[in-house]
Amino acid sequence: MKFEIIKRSSKSKARVGKLYTPHGVIDTPMFQPVGTLGTVKTMTFRDLNELEAQIILSNTYHLYLRPGIELIKAAGGLHKFMHWDKPILTDSGGFQVFSLAHMRTVTDDGVEFTSHLDGTKHFLTPEKVVDIQTAFGSDIMMPLDECVAYPCGKQEAEAALVRTTSWAKQAYKYWQNKKQTEKCPTLFGIAQGSTYKDLRKISAEQIAEIGFPGYGIGGLSVGEPQNEMFEMLDIVTDILQPDRPRHLLGVGYAPDILGGIKLGADLFDCVIPTRLARHGSFLTLEGKTSIRLAEFEKDFSPIDPECDCFACRNFSKAYIRHLFWAREITAMYLLTIHNLRFFMRLMEKTRKDILEDRL
Amino acid sequence: MKFEIIKRSSKSKARVGKLYTPHGVIDTPMFQPVGTLGTVKTMTFRDLNELEAQIILSNTYHLYLRPGIELIKAAGGLHKFMHWDKPILTDSGGFQVFSLAHMRTVTDDGVEFTSHLDGTKHFLTPEKVVDIQTAFGSDIMMPLDECVAYPCGKQEAEAALVRTTSWAKQAYKYWQNKKQTEKCPTLFGIAQGSTYKDLRKISAEQIAEIGFPGYGIGGLSVGEPQNEMFEMLDIVTDILQPDRPRHLLGVGYAPDILGGIKLGADLFDCVIPTRLARHGSFLTLEGKTSIRLAEFEKDFSPIDPECDCFACRNFSKAYIRHLFWAREITAMYLLTIHNLRFFMRLMEKTRKDILEDRL
Repeated sequence: MKFEIIKRSSKSKARVGKLYTPHGVIDTPMFQPVGTLGTVKTMTFRDLNELEAQIILSNTYHLYLRPGIELIKAAGGLHKFMHWDKPILTDSGGFQVFSLAHMRTVTDDGVEFTSHLDGTKHFLTPEKVVDIQTAFGSDIMMPLDECVAYPCGKQEAEAALVRTTSWAKQAYKYWQNKKQTEKCPTLFGIAQGSTYKDLRKISAEQIAEIGFPGYGIGGLSVGEPQNEMFEMLDIVTDILQPDRPRHLLGVGYAPDILGGIKLGADLFDCVIPTRLARHGSFLTLEGKTSIRLAEFEKDFSPIDPECDCFACRNFSKAYIRHLFWAREITAMYLLTIHNLRFFMRLMEKTRKDILEDRL
Repeated sequence: MKFEIIKRSSKSKARVGKLYTPHGVIDTPMFQPVGTLGTVKTMTFRDLNELEAQIILSNTYHLYLRPGIELIKAAGGLHKFMHWDKPILTDSGGFQVFSLAHMRTVTDDGVEFTSHLDGTKHFLTPEKVVDIQTAFGSDIMMPLDECVAYPCGKQEAEAALVRTTSWAKQAYKYWQNKKQTEKCPTLFGIAQGSTYKDLRKISAEQIAEIGFPGYGIGGLSVGEPQNEMFEMLDIVTDILQPDRPRHLLGVGYAPDILGGIKLGADLFDCVIPTRLARHGSFLTLEGKTSIRLAEFEKDFSPIDPECDCFACRNFSKAYIRHLFWAREITAMYLLTIHNLRFFMRLMEKTRKDILEDRL
């Protein structure tokens, strides 16, 4: 994997780059639609290509449980299984596992958890998480980490940090050996540290030292105020080597992403555009708006007249509103297309702004 | 509207024709996907064009209640509202209203019913039903009829027949006047008569006499055995003028449609392909099969290797099965595409068989 920085902003830490992966080049900054269970919800590769998605994120935890490694391997990997020939980044499963709260036990060796689907017990180690994502055939993978909730006591945050670093070292070592004999995804390191400045600094330094070719920045956008998120991010991106890509995990709304870009983040992913769409909201530069509103009843204009997506080119708000109230799946489909395309256009514009040094 | 018969089978009453409408030509025999509420469920016009749908059926009852005539008129008609530029046939609403059972009262003037959505009262007359469908801008419309359930006592069936004929005459007269001053859809007549041979004969004769340019054949596929359906259809198509198109309303599975074609029906519509898809079943010449079956878990072949649909060209049964179990909407979308394309291909093949006199 090669990361080429084409342009650095003179006004912020923003940069425009190209990330080369086995399944293609990604222009950064870039937003990744989330394909939790082997599809971006309501979409197929055809829709994603049309809205110019360049990479998707899939969830290791969910795919590991269903359909499972064996099936994905038998299919020839995740790309072939879901018919997607562009890059896939898989997360570590850490965030999902730690969200399970009472259904998991963490030890220094790894984490045991109970499946939310059928109550079966599973044990994830740093090595196993590398194996799973290698079996998927991801382009970029993440090491097992411990993601704490917000707010989090300092002692707990520190313990999680120590474990995250230790697991990162194990994962890195295992990956270095494994890739001698096997085609492996690129492994990113994950910096944690909750909302403590000193812990963020320590985590970033420790992770940076290991030698990963890129980074995830975890544990942000988990409920903390935006200014705290930006403060933490600023500390971390001052430490991580500037020549390597940085993925601000699970972020977010447009203002979070734009702020993140200014602070040196290159990659983003979030379920917001797809989830909001299924709940009837569309995104514009003004934020989110519900298509259900009475004011759209006879509004025959598109969601956004400036938008070039399939939904905006062909359908009115009045029509999509009607479909949504009638519980038609087509409404979710059209809103998903618009919301994802909105993020893609936002990234395009932001890259242009950086290239022309306006950001 | 012009109906041109290109070929008649020498072995059955089957025929191949071309039906000319304001929104394009329909090859018959033809199956119409059902777009109840202003969309074929999970689809957009783009999918329908790809699977070569030539006409869709929309439901007057549902659209009248939601989004209502005023909105559809304000949108510039149903075609523009839903962005579909090919023909639309709307049904009379009779079938839905009469399905409401305890929520409607029939008089000689029309039918009063209670909305299944909000309990509001509505009154439909033969004239109003013509007005509604004209407001939609349909290509073909149906007159208010009384569709009885199966089984149905003879007295009740006869009373419904008398009313259907009387309403058909009123609708026809109203339409003849209305179209002097206004662009109107083509009005088909509907033959009823339950499963009584003599009533079917009387109804067909009475409706044929009025002078409609085409016909719906109603009240079949409502629970009666297939052989009874065929027997009734045979009586009716012997009576209706052979130079006019005949729509066997609400039918059905592939064997019903093929049987119907041999007995001289030209048009079909049914929610089966779309509804089965949303419930996880796919259609092949062998009938319906659930994608959920364990045998498909590691079956990486397409639903039907012979099928040219988007789903079969790109995805495996194992993948669609996984998506369906994971409750992903994309599974419903892919199965809908396949099932509708299956019907389209069946129609293509059948037209070819008739043209080459094999049916």
